[in-house]
Amino acid sequence: MSEQAETLPRGGEMPTSDFIKQLVAVIRAEDSYGSWDGKSDAELLEEFIVTKEERRDMPIIGDPDPDILWRVEKFYEAVALLLEKRTGARAAQMSKIHHEGFGRIVLLSGRLVVLSKHVRDIHRYGFETYAKLAEAGETATQDAADMVARFPDAANA
Amino acid sequence: MSEQAETLPRGGEMPTSDFIKQLVAVIRAEDSYGSWDGKSDAELLEEFIVTKEERRDMPIIGDPDPDILWRVEKFYEAVALLLEKRTGARAAQMSKIHHEGFGRIVLLSGRLVVLSKHVRDIHRYGFETYAKLAEAGETATQDAADMVARFPDAANA
Repeated sequence: MSEQAETLPRGGEMPTSDFIKQLVAVIRAEDSYGSWDGKSDAELLEEFIVTKEERRDMPIIGDPDPDILWRVEKFYEAVALLLEKRTGARAAQMSKIHHEGFGRIVLLSGRLVVLSKHVRDIHRYGFETYAKLAEAGETATQDAADMVARFPDAANA
Repeated sequence: MSEQAETLPRGGEMPTSDFIKQLVAVIRAEDSYGSWDGKSDAELLEEFIVTKEERRDMPIIGDPDPDILWRVEKFYEAVALLLEKRTGARAAQMSKIHHEGFGRIVLLSGRLVVLSKHVRDIHRYGFETYAKLAEAGETATQDAADMVARFPDAANA
């Protein structure tokens, strides 16, 4: 959102991460006309970055921007696909986001809620750095995989 | 929707049903100003009735009427509350309805998907008779209760 010049690159270093790779793949899959072919991964994901300063400047009134909801959806889509690669469990995403910016997002596999996240201030959805984005995605995927391991029968029902 | 005169009462007899009682209670709970106090249960639920003739006349184009989505929500709210009375499991509802009228509705209790329904032609949501409405609610509640009995650990997680 902010276009101010910064001495450190915004978002920091791009980490080596299965989750980041999956998220980039999810986003590139939507680029049917190849208009993002020239963009680097960092450029594709730059809207996922929200620095502390930017966060302070973001209002949390009004309906959340559809672009934000799109990014939240892509994040959990990447979690679901990475989960499938690692465990074989296919998960579907559902969400219930109130227009005031709070809500719940779940990933469902068979009869199991493999991931359940309550969100708030979704107007400010984002991560300070690419490293934190990667960490959040990896943690969510690991939590979901743990849940599949804990209740395999429900996940396969 | 239709106001044509009919020889049989529209929707038929009102059955004795825990589900119907629960659904009526859910709807009356929204009537903060008592403006429906004078309405009978049959009148309160009359919009849940869609006869075969009415169904044929209902277009399935355009966004589903918000009133229909409200009725679908009340139906599953009643299922959730009846489930809680019978099993103690508290379930939250989530839905993902495409504006073309298809989608999925789930009830989640703990880590368990206690009920999962795929819906289509939601523009025509309704039941031919009150007896069929009652039966659908009872069946959904029983299915959910069976699922809680099958995976109690996930439901309590």
